[in-house]
Amino acid sequence: MTGPPPRARMIGSMPFPFHPAGDDPVPAAVRGFSRAHADLVELHEDPIHVVARHRAPGRRVGLVSGGGSGHEPLHAGFLGRGMLDAVAPGPVFTSPHNKAVLHASRAAAGPAGVIHVVKNYTGDRINFGIAAERLRMEGVDVGRVLVDDDLATDGLDTATGRRGTGATVVVEKILGAAADTGAGLDELTALGTDVAAASRSLAVASRAQTSARTGEPAFALDGELDYGVGIHGERARASIPRPPTEELVARMLDELVAGLPDGPDDCVLVVNGMGATTLLELYVLAELASAGLTERGLTRAGLLVGTFVPALDMAGFSLTLTRMQPSWKDHWAAPAETAAFPRRTEETR
Amino acid sequence: MTGPPPRARMIGSMPFPFHPAGDDPVPAAVRGFSRAHADLVELHEDPIHVVARHRAPGRRVGLVSGGGSGHEPLHAGFLGRGMLDAVAPGPVFTSPHNKAVLHASRAAAGPAGVIHVVKNYTGDRINFGIAAERLRMEGVDVGRVLVDDDLATDGLDTATGRRGTGATVVVEKILGAAADTGAGLDELTALGTDVAAASRSLAVASRAQTSARTGEPAFALDGELDYGVGIHGERARASIPRPPTEELVARMLDELVAGLPDGPDDCVLVVNGMGATTLLELYVLAELASAGLTERGLTRAGLLVGTFVPALDMAGFSLTLTRMQPSWKDHWAAPAETAAFPRRTEETR
Repeated sequence: MTGPPPRARMIGSMPFPFHPAGDDPVPAAVRGFSRAHADLVELHEDPIHVVARHRAPGRRVGLVSGGGSGHEPLHAGFLGRGMLDAVAPGPVFTSPHNKAVLHASRAAAGPAGVIHVVKNYTGDRINFGIAAERLRMEGVDVGRVLVDDDLATDGLDTATGRRGTGATVVVEKILGAAADTGAGLDELTALGTDVAAASRSLAVASRAQTSARTGEPAFALDGELDYGVGIHGERARASIPRPPTEELVARMLDELVAGLPDGPDDCVLVVNGMGATTLLELYVLAELASAGLTERGLTRAGLLVGTFVPALDMAGFSLTLTRMQPSWKDHWAAPAETAAFPRRTEETR
Repeated sequence: MTGPPPRARMIGSMPFPFHPAGDDPVPAAVRGFSRAHADLVELHEDPIHVVARHRAPGRRVGLVSGGGSGHEPLHAGFLGRGMLDAVAPGPVFTSPHNKAVLHASRAAAGPAGVIHVVKNYTGDRINFGIAAERLRMEGVDVGRVLVDDDLATDGLDTATGRRGTGATVVVEKILGAAADTGAGLDELTALGTDVAAASRSLAVASRAQTSARTGEPAFALDGELDYGVGIHGERARASIPRPPTEELVARMLDELVAGLPDGPDDCVLVVNGMGATTLLELYVLAELASAGLTERGLTRAGLLVGTFVPALDMAGFSLTLTRMQPSWKDHWAAPAETAAFPRRTEETR
């Protein structure tokens, strides 16, 4: 039963157990995605960008996102009516080239222009920025919505500011439904910016994602939790002994609520898996966090549970809270015809 | 930064990093699930069963499934119009009590009775069987569809026969759409049995699910693949050195095609994650397997990619092929309003 010693096969900067030999996994993966969802999307390969086949007739502004791969279903899984019009997936954990963003934006642009939904990382800001300059030279109006929700990076003395993580899905959902109403570029840019500003996320890891060099977890946790981990495995400022889950969720909620700007008590809650954490656990966490909202005098305008913005195969989860303005609720509840957003977001309580 | 040594907290027979202290995770998880999808399902707690809120007006036969937990989104994720009417989730990797199946069946039964979709394991057969006897005594007609698709257990000298795994989703989808047409009990029982008989699955693991006793993988693979692993971590007859992914997929397809009974060349292909395998990899595998079908003279009637029947947080994947009779295709393509089945299954090719 024993064979030769295993060799980690390197793809880009990450080893995957299952990938085509000698290839970057991203091109094959986007082909597979586009084949499985050919009713929803169309793949363009040079440079790689994926375009939604259908958009609401009234949509005047195209919505584009993208970023490094390894966070699937983000972003291509949110292509379709009610959400995004085109995405530019980069290599694993690496910003897409500005040419890919440019091509995606050209495909997506509506009569009133295009909005870039950009997670706040230096590479993404630069590449979306270069594409935006090119688009403006071509006469396309461009807005930018920067998503910077990661509370773990709040107050750090960096030029970049907070990282963009789980709130991206909330921004894309609300912005998509608003775009379908025929809103213009400035209005949508302001809306998306407001949604991002009303959102904070916090992530913990119990096991790091698989490392490129070793095939083992990228960092050792020895039974502790990385409290405030990033979606590329950026280490938290603190690893902590594993508390009882109730205490962990309570601590995360306390910090999220304290970190949120003032606003309505009505919140969307996202319980997001970081990759390898089971749905069984995520639904337990959702139940604890829902009760925790009530205890804090907050109401729940929506609850989204699943693996939406993972860090490859990291074990862990994030919580996102968005304080919802009343006018956003219909956008949250509107149907989205995408590969990955759940069929409905409405709920009875 | 270092704290006291970590302790694995035991829940039922499994340790989970994130669960409520002292509780079995399943009750909290089904509450969280039912809260997140309150538009779709209603939870009943004693005994635990979950019931779909909506069913097609013409449906005359209720569809019930269930089984041990740890395979989420199976089965509750497939509750709703076009698929299941009620489910009985058991403890992790343990059959539900027959009383839970009985209650689920009473809630689901239509004027022409109820069908039990049962994965082929001894405990499930016994508990669904006891419930069926009780139901018949109550005057409810009961059919059973046994799903036994796991090729790795074909030809084993056991009384139980092949295990039920990934094809469960295909059976539930086709049977659900057929039930919505108003078909009767015998017709649906025969259809479900035919779909199961036309299906074979094969699973590989690159890392075992987390073990109860150690918090480590339940079995060591040392870089090899468990070729033919079960969805509860049942070891394969062989672990093999890790082949290039193209060779692995080709071998699996060869064996699946050889193991399938004769039938149409048109197939549904399911690429299913075992828990911790990234969507990035699953879509790569989907692309390789789709090409492999074409090379073997088969056509693709449908392609489903995602984590649908995992084994907790096992890393690995399964392939399922179902030879599709022409009359099944509309059922496969019909919309399903559930938490976990993708919005559409149609595809252009």
